[in-house]
Amino acid sequence: MAAKKKAPARGTSPTTLTRVRRLPELGRYEPRDIDAILDAATHCHIAHLIGRQPVVTPTLHWRVGDRVYWHGSVASRMLKAAGAKAQVCLTATIIDGWVLARSAFNHSANYRSVMCFGQPEPVADAADKSRLLEILTDKLFPGRWPQLRPMTRKELGATTILSLALTQASAKVRSGPPDDPLKDREWPVWAGVVPMELRLRAPVADSGAIAGLKAPRLRAPGRR
Amino acid sequence: MAAKKKAPARGTSPTTLTRVRRLPELGRYEPRDIDAILDAATHCHIAHLIGRQPVVTPTLHWRVGDRVYWHGSVASRMLKAAGAKAQVCLTATIIDGWVLARSAFNHSANYRSVMCFGQPEPVADAADKSRLLEILTDKLFPGRWPQLRPMTRKELGATTILSLALTQASAKVRSGPPDDPLKDREWPVWAGVVPMELRLRAPVADSGAIAGLKAPRLRAPGRR
Repeated sequence: MAAKKKAPARGTSPTTLTRVRRLPELGRYEPRDIDAILDAATHCHIAHLIGRQPVVTPTLHWRVGDRVYWHGSVASRMLKAAGAKAQVCLTATIIDGWVLARSAFNHSANYRSVMCFGQPEPVADAADKSRLLEILTDKLFPGRWPQLRPMTRKELGATTILSLALTQASAKVRSGPPDDPLKDREWPVWAGVVPMELRLRAPVADSGAIAGLKAPRLRAPGRR
Repeated sequence: MAAKKKAPARGTSPTTLTRVRRLPELGRYEPRDIDAILDAATHCHIAHLIGRQPVVTPTLHWRVGDRVYWHGSVASRMLKAAGAKAQVCLTATIIDGWVLARSAFNHSANYRSVMCFGQPEPVADAADKSRLLEILTDKLFPGRWPQLRPMTRKELGATTILSLALTQASAKVRSGPPDDPLKDREWPVWAGVVPMELRLRAPVADSGAIAGLKAPRLRAPGRR
């Protein structure tokens, strides 16, 4: 499908670009770890260059195999700005909680993040685009695609999709309690973790919605 | 404090850099709107250049008046990479829900985001640094700073803090129901919004914690 060009195989070792330098023990390079974080994150932030100015834009993303995809206006502007030939950096982050230590210095957050580098490639074929949008819709709203008013040829034409091979990617994960040094552990202040998670609230039907239709039951994003 | 240099006044109009081009009706340029989003976001993503490669890193941030601050390893690497003279882009995003339309094309997310551009400046003075870290701690964990083992001179020395004046910043906010065209509104599928929010779960005390100390009650981030 979409990726006609076969991407180089994904390694499990860091490269010069992807090596986690600060707290290297938190770095992960296994595709299954990287994929799980990309799949769990609601959105990502993509940096690209406009002249010498880096611009970082939030957007929805989705993964199919060894590629990550994004679409819409962000992809469209990137294509215009650099003909998809420029290097981008795509980072997705999930904050899992606050880490409360005995000193301000050792306070932290628990998180899962992924950083991917490369040159994005546009998806040209309309059937590929349609199939990719179906996968995105199905990821966010399982079972909804066949219920929707079908995509028109015009809508497909107006939708830009870019993708990045996951050949230069790394993850960084912090979990667990604070890392207070032994000498701080007697300091009389509560220490531990306050976990954080995304929750979905009750669906709010559009005021013009047809009566009797049932809201879909969605899974909260971000879970492991 | 910290910002000795007086930053130029913040405007309420877009600049070439900050103008929201896609869906301009969602753009906001009032400092109070920008500040509220920065204050509510758990973290931000900062893009900077390493050579010609944009790199976007997640980090915690906090705002004091007309500046936004970040610290730690991200700030430290930026200082090393570019002597804080390079342009950065700081983007903070809160996803408020999924927007379910009658067509895949009109599906969207409700969100609040802020994008800030400029050259970061390091905070040099130890007393300024200490005061800024107190403000960050107090933002996340109200009342906790005086209970903590005090910062040492060495810790302050090891902490890099950078800041960005909010003179080139804009916000973009989508809220409310799907934007289906009239002719789609009869399509028989549920449409509306599934709101999403961050929730804190029950605190988990460090296994070495002193018995009888009470976990702080924190406010969930992201709320308006």
